[in-house]
Amino acid sequence: MNDARPAEDRLAALERRLRDLEDQHEIAQLVAAYGPLVDGGEPDLVADLWTEDGIYDVDEITMTGRDEIRAMVRSTNHQGWIKGGCAHFLGPVKVTVSGDDAVAVCHSLMVINRGGSFEEAPEFVVRRATAHHIELTRTAEGWRVTQRTSRVLDGREEAPALLVRGATGRPA
Amino acid sequence: MNDARPAEDRLAALERRLRDLEDQHEIAQLVAAYGPLVDGGEPDLVADLWTEDGIYDVDEITMTGRDEIRAMVRSTNHQGWIKGGCAHFLGPVKVTVSGDDAVAVCHSLMVINRGGSFEEAPEFVVRRATAHHIELTRTAEGWRVTQRTSRVLDGREEAPALLVRGATGRPA
Amino acid sequence: MNDARPAEDRLAALERRLRDLEDQHEIAQLVAAYGPLVDGGEPDLVADLWTEDGIYDVDEITMTGRDEIRAMVRSTNHQGWIKGGCAHFLGPVKVTVSGDDAVAVCHSLMVINRGGSFEEAPEFVVRRATAHHIELTRTAEGWRVTQRTSRVLDGREEAPALLVRGATGRPA
Repeated sequence: MNDARPAEDRLAALERRLRDLEDQHEIAQLVAAYGPLVDGGEPDLVADLWTEDGIYDVDEITMTGRDEIRAMVRSTNHQGWIKGGCAHFLGPVKVTVSGDDAVAVCHSLMVINRGGSFEEAPEFVVRRATAHHIELTRTAEGWRVTQRTSRVLDGREEAPALLVRGATGRPA
Repeated sequence: MNDARPAEDRLAALERRLRDLEDQHEIAQLVAAYGPLVDGGEPDLVADLWTEDGIYDVDEITMTGRDEIRAMVRSTNHQGWIKGGCAHFLGPVKVTVSGDDAVAVCHSLMVINRGGSFEEAPEFVVRRATAHHIELTRTAEGWRVTQRTSRVLDGREEAPALLVRGATGRPA
Repeated sequence: MNDARPAEDRLAALERRLRDLEDQHEIAQLVAAYGPLVDGGEPDLVADLWTEDGIYDVDEITMTGRDEIRAMVRSTNHQGWIKGGCAHFLGPVKVTVSGDDAVAVCHSLMVINRGGSFEEAPEFVVRRATAHHIELTRTAEGWRVTQRTSRVLDGREEAPALLVRGATGRPA
């Protein structure tokens, strides 16, 4: 049985629905790239996930703009994690898109190698479980992070609150 | 080169394929929301992932209906995990949709803070790795969980069996 | 306002964009199935994620072809992990598709039960955090892995390098 709607309406509906899915997919891929890129030690590619003046607000430090994010990746501290063995392991994101803005939420685990060679069965430990609330905007180059707010899940009230605001698409 | 098929056929094929992707995406988002919402301590939003009479069958307890799921989130036990610091960290789901029913499968890790302030470099531990088999139905409000069966991966035979049935789209 | 482009152009654009999303989704689902299937101990279903002569190159061993992958799943060693309690927990993949070839990247955690019954609050430990670089090809049966290269994130330089090559869509 043929659809009674005019082809024009069906095309427009498909284009709208497909764009919604593409937006959500692109945002999920952007967030999924963070872990491999930061553990790979790539300052420029990590910073490029944010807008030029994007904010990365972690418990200990707030980085403002790509230069400060690059500096974090290049820091002795971060390079030390990589040299010791480290996984910034992110979970699947829940994404809420509203036009040209979006909010995403996920957990992450920072897992580090406690030392020893592979042959000696090295043990890894979870250094931190963290809540991430991520605000994004659509730019000419695609979706970019405008503000990522990350709080360790150690009982501080801010962390569960961020998870709820992220899962319900509200700002941090 | 133009496609020889009538536009009507091409539209209908696009609509069918797009709906398949949307179904799988919506289910993945529903499952991804569980972790942030349960760690955020939101009884209503967690319960709303299930149908009104949906079942949540975990090793120690079977909850039947949204009221019992709400009660679990509100319980002293669960609120204690949140206050101590806790991540219900879910993995990516593999989804199989058959019309208005679906089966999804994933792992989760329950990661808890062992105590200490952030400055003292708190350690987190994996309290449990769990297999989840999730059955869903399409409702007027969207996809909802009808039964989630969760078994700890501690060697009990039920847990690997659930993973296989979930990954191959079979009921629990 | 109606779109000025001919319906033929709009249909062709929709078909191309939808196919891109379907490819990325299918690859993400293929990778997501690995954990549940390998922890479920299914030699045939695990091997079927690869092409007939696909390669699985892990730190200790390189498996070539489905028979060697099946043998790994059936091995006393792997079956021992399942009997003891084990989760091969994969993260979300970042996927780059180029025509009939693709590259995906993700982390995984191998989490094992240290023993004890559930009632005794067993602890789980992270045995390994690993970087995965996955090359795939489009076959008549759908996307399949041609080469998966996995290196433990214990500080060896190969592992971060694989993450970067995977995240930027380059071969291993």
